[in-house]
Amino acid sequence: MMNFDCSLSQLTSSMRIEPEPLSQHLENFIKEYVDKLERDGVVLGLSGGIDSAVVAALCARAVGAGNTLALIMPDRDSKKEHVKDALDFARSMGIETKLIDITPHLSQLGTYELFVLEGLPIGGESRETIIKRAYDLYRMVRGDTPFSASIVGFRDKEFGPYLGRANAYYRVKHRLRMVLLYLHAELENRLVVGAANKTEYRIGFFVKHGCDDAADIMPIIGLYKTQVRELARFLGIPSRIIDKAPSPDVIPGIVDEDAIGVPYEELDLILLALEKGWGSDTIATVLNVERGKVEYVRSLVQRSEHMRHLYTPR
Amino acid sequence: MMNFDCSLSQLTSSMRIEPEPLSQHLENFIKEYVDKLERDGVVLGLSGGIDSAVVAALCARAVGAGNTLALIMPDRDSKKEHVKDALDFARSMGIETKLIDITPHLSQLGTYELFVLEGLPIGGESRETIIKRAYDLYRMVRGDTPFSASIVGFRDKEFGPYLGRANAYYRVKHRLRMVLLYLHAELENRLVVGAANKTEYRIGFFVKHGCDDAADIMPIIGLYKTQVRELARFLGIPSRIIDKAPSPDVIPGIVDEDAIGVPYEELDLILLALEKGWGSDTIATVLNVERGKVEYVRSLVQRSEHMRHLYTPR
Repeated sequence: MMNFDCSLSQLTSSMRIEPEPLSQHLENFIKEYVDKLERDGVVLGLSGGIDSAVVAALCARAVGAGNTLALIMPDRDSKKEHVKDALDFARSMGIETKLIDITPHLSQLGTYELFVLEGLPIGGESRETIIKRAYDLYRMVRGDTPFSASIVGFRDKEFGPYLGRANAYYRVKHRLRMVLLYLHAELENRLVVGAANKTEYRIGFFVKHGCDDAADIMPIIGLYKTQVRELARFLGIPSRIIDKAPSPDVIPGIVDEDAIGVPYEELDLILLALEKGWGSDTIATVLNVERGKVEYVRSLVQRSEHMRHLYTPR
Repeated sequence: MMNFDCSLSQLTSSMRIEPEPLSQHLENFIKEYVDKLERDGVVLGLSGGIDSAVVAALCARAVGAGNTLALIMPDRDSKKEHVKDALDFARSMGIETKLIDITPHLSQLGTYELFVLEGLPIGGESRETIIKRAYDLYRMVRGDTPFSASIVGFRDKEFGPYLGRANAYYRVKHRLRMVLLYLHAELENRLVVGAANKTEYRIGFFVKHGCDDAADIMPIIGLYKTQVRELARFLGIPSRIIDKAPSPDVIPGIVDEDAIGVPYEELDLILLALEKGWGSDTIATVLNVERGKVEYVRSLVQRSEHMRHLYTPR
């Protein structure tokens, strides 16, 4: 049926990037919009993860470290090591930082009262363990990840209210971060630079209208996560940041690959193959993965369409 | 040069709506997305102004007043009469409301410390008077409205810092309102319905990523302000709400037409003519307005392009 080449080598070759010209291209893009929108510099959120580190490095190269402001905005759930990694990295780059604990703002919004585990008899176990177990229970009972379920609404009478509280709980954090980024952008005439990558954007692994969605420009949104890693090595991002398990750092104990349920190496190749229009059977065969996994990724892309699109009447 | 009809009657006829089928069409649109995104109802911000009242009425007709939640979110600067109008209207429609004073949240974010007039020797004059005077002063000195200037950055050394503080001051309010709308949407599995109209969206008279921009669906974004008024009359919105001067109600003393500098009746016709591709001279002649006014509106549309678009590298 298909008369074009569907092979693993075709995928891996399409996935290859040339870090040096790519970096130059992205730096030019950043500079172009700082000028076009008449700003005096940029502001971005720095989480201690790889995506925001790459964006910060690109910004520093594009407009100078002195014109790059990084907001580090942990809350009570943020891992201390991520905050330290963010601070150390910014310092090593000569980027100005502001450390803003968003816990008081979130408290006032009632966020922590939403935490579904508070008050439950959790015995001697850590919150991380309990949350992971709840996650696994949902997957077992519903045959879907809570992440996938949470992309659209939850008419599920049994789990719905829990999903709703969990969604509200973590999403408000990234939206509040967006509010703070724009507050600083407006005060200092800076451009807000977002750090979404292609993988998470395509599958809806971000907070709609949160700091990984609502920005002025998105330099690395054309790069799959594994490509971001390659660019990070070229940019000299510390291997500590490159190699740690990616995590949204919004719900204790949940890292990206637990939440999504597919490792990035596989996920990126599946997404690329879907982008090329390959059928699910072909993808499953070529990548040697279960067909169900391919269909799961395809459904994430479809279900998350509303997160990339504002619906208006025809 | 043009062999098509450029007349005022052509514009006013294009501007005409048929309220009854239009309302039905917009109600179907709302219902369709509540179902498609698997929600149990809708949530919207109700300001006491005409746009959100129209959207609330459409929602109530589409999914039932009982499934429509209106958040009324005044801060210390909001006019009491708008809050009362919003409450009275919702009550008359049988729509559930939550009244949330956002002043404490804004205080904690440092918003009120940004108010450029605090501490100035303003004598016996009201804040409204002082702000209006500052607005007029800027227009006189720069030959542009502060609104127009604030759409992109402000490399203006003299006025820039004031504009920046004013922007930060009012924009954080609408962004925080968005955060609260989504918090409630997620807890109760509701769709967030926005109330942007075509006029304000085209000229950038909204807060980027604020509650009049960041929503799930936008039912009246295809309608010019004057068309919204016509629809409002059909929907039985109280004339008190239809007839009062439209105002973003975020900076004391500033109503829409002061800020924009062109009355809606003229603005809508200019925008429609621009949409039809008419030249500035033709528009000025047909509408009997100064060419400079047409060029001003054209520039608003161009300068605000970034507010409707997320920039990504080619």
